[in-house]
Amino acid sequence: MSGDRFTEISGGVTAPRSFAAGSIFAGIKATNTSKPDIAFVVSEAPAVSGGTFTTNKVKAAPVRVSQAHVRGAETRAIVANSGNANACTGVIGIEHAKRMAKALARALKLKERQVLVCSTGRIGVPLPIETMEAAIAKAPQVLSADGSLAAAQAIMTSDTKVKEIAVEFQLGDKTVRIGGIAKGAGMIDPNMATMLSFVTTDAAISKKLLQQAISDAVEQSFNRITVDGDMSTNDTVLVLANGTAGNEPLSDGTADFDLFQNALNHVCCALARMIVEDGEGVSKFVTVQVRGGKSRQDARKAAEAVANSTLTKCCWFGGDPNWGRVMDAIGYSGAKIREETVDIYYDGLIAVQNGMAASTPFSKLKEVVANKRFTITVDLHVGEADYTVFTTDLTTAYVEFNMGE
Amino acid sequence: MSGDRFTEISGGVTAPRSFAAGSIFAGIKATNTSKPDIAFVVSEAPAVSGGTFTTNKVKAAPVRVSQAHVRGAETRAIVANSGNANACTGVIGIEHAKRMAKALARALKLKERQVLVCSTGRIGVPLPIETMEAAIAKAPQVLSADGSLAAAQAIMTSDTKVKEIAVEFQLGDKTVRIGGIAKGAGMIDPNMATMLSFVTTDAAISKKLLQQAISDAVEQSFNRITVDGDMSTNDTVLVLANGTAGNEPLSDGTADFDLFQNALNHVCCALARMIVEDGEGVSKFVTVQVRGGKSRQDARKAAEAVANSTLTKCCWFGGDPNWGRVMDAIGYSGAKIREETVDIYYDGLIAVQNGMAASTPFSKLKEVVANKRFTITVDLHVGEADYTVFTTDLTTAYVEFNMGE
Repeated sequence: MSGDRFTEISGGVTAPRSFAAGSIFAGIKATNTSKPDIAFVVSEAPAVSGGTFTTNKVKAAPVRVSQAHVRGAETRAIVANSGNANACTGVIGIEHAKRMAKALARALKLKERQVLVCSTGRIGVPLPIETMEAAIAKAPQVLSADGSLAAAQAIMTSDTKVKEIAVEFQLGDKTVRIGGIAKGAGMIDPNMATMLSFVTTDAAISKKLLQQAISDAVEQSFNRITVDGDMSTNDTVLVLANGTAGNEPLSDGTADFDLFQNALNHVCCALARMIVEDGEGVSKFVTVQVRGGKSRQDARKAAEAVANSTLTKCCWFGGDPNWGRVMDAIGYSGAKIREETVDIYYDGLIAVQNGMAASTPFSKLKEVVANKRFTITVDLHVGEADYTVFTTDLTTAYVEFNMGE
Repeated sequence: MSGDRFTEISGGVTAPRSFAAGSIFAGIKATNTSKPDIAFVVSEAPAVSGGTFTTNKVKAAPVRVSQAHVRGAETRAIVANSGNANACTGVIGIEHAKRMAKALARALKLKERQVLVCSTGRIGVPLPIETMEAAIAKAPQVLSADGSLAAAQAIMTSDTKVKEIAVEFQLGDKTVRIGGIAKGAGMIDPNMATMLSFVTTDAAISKKLLQQAISDAVEQSFNRITVDGDMSTNDTVLVLANGTAGNEPLSDGTADFDLFQNALNHVCCALARMIVEDGEGVSKFVTVQVRGGKSRQDARKAAEAVANSTLTKCCWFGGDPNWGRVMDAIGYSGAKIREETVDIYYDGLIAVQNGMAASTPFSKLKEVVANKRFTITVDLHVGEADYTVFTTDLTTAYVEFNMGE
């Protein structure tokens, strides 16, 4: 294993060489604001791309368009807006998503197919496309080699903090960089955490291997916070790689590729964690680890059931360990379990042994759940598989935030 | 169809002939109360029984014991306690559940196997079995032919209202009665609405047909409020039939049996509805109807996804129609859908047509969601199957109630 022979650096998506980013105000949001609402991420050199998209059957128009465009041999740019999801907008939505891509292509002298497109915001309202086209035409004036922060800010919706990270590492005598930005939903709810993330790298890597790498990284990061099958209409992760670091093109199964993958995982995990921690109405960050599952799928079912139970989440908010609710959740999760072999730990303190109350005093368990961060470990003892998810409590502030307007 | 040729009457589980019920105080709850916490329902004549039990893999000891006892040819009585679920209590839990049955059998001169047993309350704490045995021994002193209300009260936990119903109808020249009592969880959450219901009838019916009838009735009532696979460790519905009405034993496929089934469905649906409406922290009662599903399973998945989304439930609380969240939920539900054929109605007002915003003004939809009760109808237009579930909003009061102690 390569360990973590990489260093965090500043610069986000513009830390890798030959990337530019920026943002502009188009006035998409109904509210009176002058905050930029369109972001650009552009590779100044030819690049390949990869992506993962929502599995929701109701897919926003930009998701459908980007799924088509990402299959192209070369990708050069991403255009993304906040304030309007361009979802449930029918054929006009598809046309609008294409027009966003075309507008940036025209401004940068690219082909429409070389531009990927994302939207986030309100569902069911057509985009103000003319206004947006006029704004996107000005992209060349706002793109900059240190524009990552501007782009990261422009995709924020109810996020309270900018989410940005970059790392660098050596491949032989070449320095390779990976950068990323992301937005989360205000609330972190697996049902609909509309999540966008854009990752850039100057590594030389084939399109095929890049897609494999981003799929693996997403599986270990964003998919741990937004439960599969429970995704929003717009969830999208995109990666661009332009090879300007000058490394030998990466090959699967090599130490170099392992290092690249680890660094990419680190970038995605860091962004995923920032999304969870910035959830509106979140007061606790809870790691749910399941061990000893019959299969990875089983461990996952159990972990997700615990992490998504409204009852476990409410009691974490209240500082009540309530392991009975954890037992109940794993019981209905569909995972293979034997009640009498289940152990449960709160930050390493045993709460349940062989499916029954263990000797740890309740007051000690309460101390754990009083913390802002804690880990619940469930050992099913029926196999070797494990799975970990990251989640939050369910608070009155969450309900208030999501009551609507 | 027999229509509803039955009449609601008073008397609950003691409305049918030759049933007695009652309750007693054993002091099971930790809190200082003298409210009776053990309920009895007893047939004074030989009876057959049927039951449906939680599908949770973590099953409380009384569930395991009753699942065994209900297979016996004759059943005479039910003993149920509140305050302690006798779940996650290992082999001692099984022993305690059997001792509960044995104690009532001894008091009434029955066999242990003729007694069914239920518990509801705190998980993971052994029952105070000696105290309970002493109390159960006094059952003959508290059993009465109008004891239904006492029994219904003794199984209440955070319920605020007693849940009791009975109906009667004619089979030829015989009057047949069906009665029922129930308790819900305080909160109605599909994750863990610990639900008990006991139904009695003086109809003459075979054990086999009674089981079929109660399974069908539960599927159309309690299963519509507690989502399959998301059941608590203790959920149980039991039915006893003692044949004292003197009707010809019912046969499947006859008009008489249809009438019996309709009446039984009515009893179970009424109790299920009472459970939902009495949920702690509930402010709205929402019916989610899905039509036009490819299969019944699909319609069910879509309906349950909408009914269980924390985001849809939060916005109902806030009076926000937010059909985008409904679209999102059906999209990730796993049901076969085509976004462009989905129509959504709020109390009959069309909100979404062909997957896009319909012409109904938003203000009209808001008026619907401002009501205490409303129906969301989703027409998938991909088949003929339908499914309906009953649910509630998600409120700040719910979170406060479930924060723990």
